[in-house]
Amino acid sequence: MRVGAETETGMSRLSLSDTDKQARDWFHETCTGLGCKVNTDAMGNQFAIRPGLSNDRPPTYAGSHLDTQPTGGRYDGILGVTAAVEMLKVLNDNWVETNYPVGVVNWTNEEGARFPMSMVSSGVWAGSIPLEKAHELRSVIPANDPATMKTELQRIGYLGEVPCSWEATPMAAHFELHIEQGPILEAEDRRVGVVQGVQSYKWFTLTVKGRDSHTGATSFQHRADALLTASKMILASHKIAAKHSALASTGILGLRPGSTNTVPGFVQFSLDIRAPQDETVNAVEAECREAFSSLAAGENVLSINDGCAPSSRTCSVEWRTDFTSPATHFHDNCIACVQAAGSDLCSGSSSSQVQGKDIGAWGKLMTSGAGHDSVYANKRCPTSMIFVPCRDGVSHNPTEYSNPEACADGANVLLGAVVRYDKMRGERGT
Amino acid sequence: MRVGAETETGMSRLSLSDTDKQARDWFHETCTGLGCKVNTDAMGNQFAIRPGLSNDRPPTYAGSHLDTQPTGGRYDGILGVTAAVEMLKVLNDNWVETNYPVGVVNWTNEEGARFPMSMVSSGVWAGSIPLEKAHELRSVIPANDPATMKTELQRIGYLGEVPCSWEATPMAAHFELHIEQGPILEAEDRRVGVVQGVQSYKWFTLTVKGRDSHTGATSFQHRADALLTASKMILASHKIAAKHSALASTGILGLRPGSTNTVPGFVQFSLDIRAPQDETVNAVEAECREAFSSLAAGENVLSINDGCAPSSRTCSVEWRTDFTSPATHFHDNCIACVQAAGSDLCSGSSSSQVQGKDIGAWGKLMTSGAGHDSVYANKRCPTSMIFVPCRDGVSHNPTEYSNPEACADGANVLLGAVVRYDKMRGERGT
Repeated sequence: MRVGAETETGMSRLSLSDTDKQARDWFHETCTGLGCKVNTDAMGNQFAIRPGLSNDRPPTYAGSHLDTQPTGGRYDGILGVTAAVEMLKVLNDNWVETNYPVGVVNWTNEEGARFPMSMVSSGVWAGSIPLEKAHELRSVIPANDPATMKTELQRIGYLGEVPCSWEATPMAAHFELHIEQGPILEAEDRRVGVVQGVQSYKWFTLTVKGRDSHTGATSFQHRADALLTASKMILASHKIAAKHSALASTGILGLRPGSTNTVPGFVQFSLDIRAPQDETVNAVEAECREAFSSLAAGENVLSINDGCAPSSRTCSVEWRTDFTSPATHFHDNCIACVQAAGSDLCSGSSSSQVQGKDIGAWGKLMTSGAGHDSVYANKRCPTSMIFVPCRDGVSHNPTEYSNPEACADGANVLLGAVVRYDKMRGERGT
Repeated sequence: MRVGAETETGMSRLSLSDTDKQARDWFHETCTGLGCKVNTDAMGNQFAIRPGLSNDRPPTYAGSHLDTQPTGGRYDGILGVTAAVEMLKVLNDNWVETNYPVGVVNWTNEEGARFPMSMVSSGVWAGSIPLEKAHELRSVIPANDPATMKTELQRIGYLGEVPCSWEATPMAAHFELHIEQGPILEAEDRRVGVVQGVQSYKWFTLTVKGRDSHTGATSFQHRADALLTASKMILASHKIAAKHSALASTGILGLRPGSTNTVPGFVQFSLDIRAPQDETVNAVEAECREAFSSLAAGENVLSINDGCAPSSRTCSVEWRTDFTSPATHFHDNCIACVQAAGSDLCSGSSSSQVQGKDIGAWGKLMTSGAGHDSVYANKRCPTSMIFVPCRDGVSHNPTEYSNPEACADGANVLLGAVVRYDKMRGERGT
C-alpha cells in the first residue's frame, strides 16, 4: 500500500451534522476529562480552558475547526484542534503550570461548505459578522434543506448560552496549526511554515451577455458569443495576474441556454484575485476591468484576439464584488514564538541565524494563500499560524495527506509557541 | 408597438405534448377538409395527399414540422407546414389539377428538444435511424419524465399503422420552406434563399482533466487548471475555424467541483464544427486535436500562451465524437425549380441572368448552416429548401420574427417550386 493510502478515506463532516455533533461531544468530554472547563457560545464555538497559576487574564488559545468539505480530507482544520488537545495532555502529563490559562478552540463552520459563509463563527466572535445574519444562513447541502445554522445548533444541542463575542470570550492570543494546503514546503523540503499573514483577496461574479444564436446558421461576424468572450477574459485575468506575481482563478462558470448547437448568450463566472498586498489585488482588478471591457467590445487585448474572426456584434460585461478580504498581518510576538519553537525543534537552537527572510533550512516565513479563522482572531488578539507540509499541496480532497512526522512537528511547534507566549506574558505580567 | 412585437409571445409546443396533439388534429382536419387523404405512420409523421390527374406515382411533397423548442418562435418549422397547407388551398381555389399527387408532410420531433434526437422521424423514414431506437427515446422535458416517444404517440393517438419508411410512404420530391435562422438574407437585403445543401458538421464532447487545488494556496506553477486550459481550447478552436472559413462553437460547458476558491480539476464542453465541405470539417478537427493536446501539455499554440505563467503540471484531454452529419447536396432539379419560382416572383422573369453564383438581387444560392428534415428526405428523393429572411437572424427564441411579406414570398416560392416540379414530371412522364 502506498504511504498514506490508509488515510485516504477522506472525511465528510459537514458543520452541525450528526457526525459533527459526535466530534463536538468527543471534544467536550476529552477536554473536560483533561481538567478543562468547556464553554459553548451562541455560534456553537467550543472553548476549553485549562487554568493557569493566575486566572484573572484571558487564556492563550490554540485551535482550529473540526468541520470539513463534503468530500474533504482528514487534516484540514482537524489537525489544528487535535494537536491543541494533545497540547493539553502534554501539559498535564508533565505537570506544567502555565502563568495564565491555556485554551483550545473549535470554531464552527469554518469551511462554509454547508452554511455558505467561510469562517463565519470566528467572524461573529470578532464582531465582523452580525449574529442574526449568521444564524439565518441556510444549509446548502443537501439542496433545499430548510435548516438554518440556528435550527441546526438547537437540534444538535450546541446553541450555547455564552454570547458569541471577543468580549464575552476574550483571548490573549490565538495560535493555529494547519496543513499548508499548497505545495511550497514540500517542494522546498522544509518542515515548518511560520505564517506572517494571509493574502489579500477579492471575489467577484462576472456576467457576460451576448446573444443566443444558431451555431450552424450564424457566421462569426454576426455572433455575440458570451462563452468565447468569457474564455478570453479568463485567459486575460491569468496573464494580468501572472504579470503582477498575483493569482487569478475562476472556479465557477455557468451558461445559458446550454445546447450544443446554440451559441450561449449568457455566461456567469467567478473571479478570485489574490496577492500578499492589497495594492496588488487592486491593480490586477483594475487591469482586468479594463481588459474585460475591451474584450466584450471586440477589441484586442494582450494579443488574445490575434487570429480571431471580427464580429459586428459585441457583448456586455458586469462586475459584482462578492467578498473583500484585505491582507492580514499577524502579530510580531506570535510570529516570533512560532519561529523560536520551530527553530528549537528542528535545528536544536532557538537563536538561529536569521538573515532577512531566511530563517534556516528547517522553515520558511510564509503568507497564507487561504483564509482561516486566524484572520478574524487576529482582529481581536495577537495571532499567528503554523503550517506543515501536505503531499502535493492537495487539500479539500480525500487524498489530502500529511505524514505522521509532519503532524508531530506541527503539534510540537504549536505547544512550543503557546508555552513561549505564556512565558512572555508571565515576564511582562499581562 | 414595435413591428412584429405582437408575435413575440413565442411558442412552446413540445413534440407529442397535448398542444402538439391539438396542432396535429388541426392539420388532419384542415387537410381532410381540403380533400386530402391523411396518413399517419409509426413515428406520428402526418402525410396529406391531394390527388393528381395520375395517381400511380408518388406525390411531390412540401412540408416541415410543427413542434418547437421549449421557448421557441412562431416560424421555425411552422411556416413550412402552414405554407404547404396554404398551397393546398390555392390549388383548390384555382381548380388546379396537377399531373401527379401533391402532398404535405408534418414531421415529428424535428427539434429534438423533448426527445433528444433532432430530425429523428425523417431519419426513421429514410432508414437512417432504427424505429425501435426512436420509439425508446425518453422525454427530457420535464426532467425525469418516464414517457418515451412510443408511449406519448400512443397517449395522444398518433401511433399510426403505416410503417415509417420511404418505401411505405414514397416521395417523388420534398420541398421545405424555412426561415433562414441566420442573418445573411436580411443583411444583404435579399428576399429568397435558394438552398443548395446543408453544411457538413461534427459534434464532439471534450473532457479536460487537471487537478482540484486551492485558489489561494496553489501557485500558477503548481496548477493543472482544467478551466483555464479549456478556455484556451475554445479560443484555439475559434482561431483554427476562422482560418479555414469554417465554424467552431461551444454551447455547453460544465465543471467540477464548482467553488469560487477551488481551481477546477474537471471540465467538459461541447464542440460543434461546421463547414460546407466535409474535408474542411475534418481539417479543422485535425488541427483542433493537435492544438488541444499541445495546450493540455502546457505548450504554446497560436500564441495563446504568450504571457501565461508556466506550470510544472499538465492536463489531459479526451475527445468523444457524438454526431457526424456529412455535407448534404440537394438535387439540381429541385434547386432549379426553387430558383425559377423565386426569380419569377421577385424579378418577374423566370430566366434571370445567372452569372456563377449571382442569381440576381432578389435571391441567393445558400448552404444551410442548420440541419433540417430535408437532410434525411434528400437521402430518398430529390429535395431542396427555400429560405426567407428572419429579423436579426434570431431563432429558437420568442423574439424570432419574419415579416408577413417574407412569409408570403416563401409560400409563393414553395407553391411555384412544387407546381414547376410537377410540370417537369408531367413532361417526363415520371
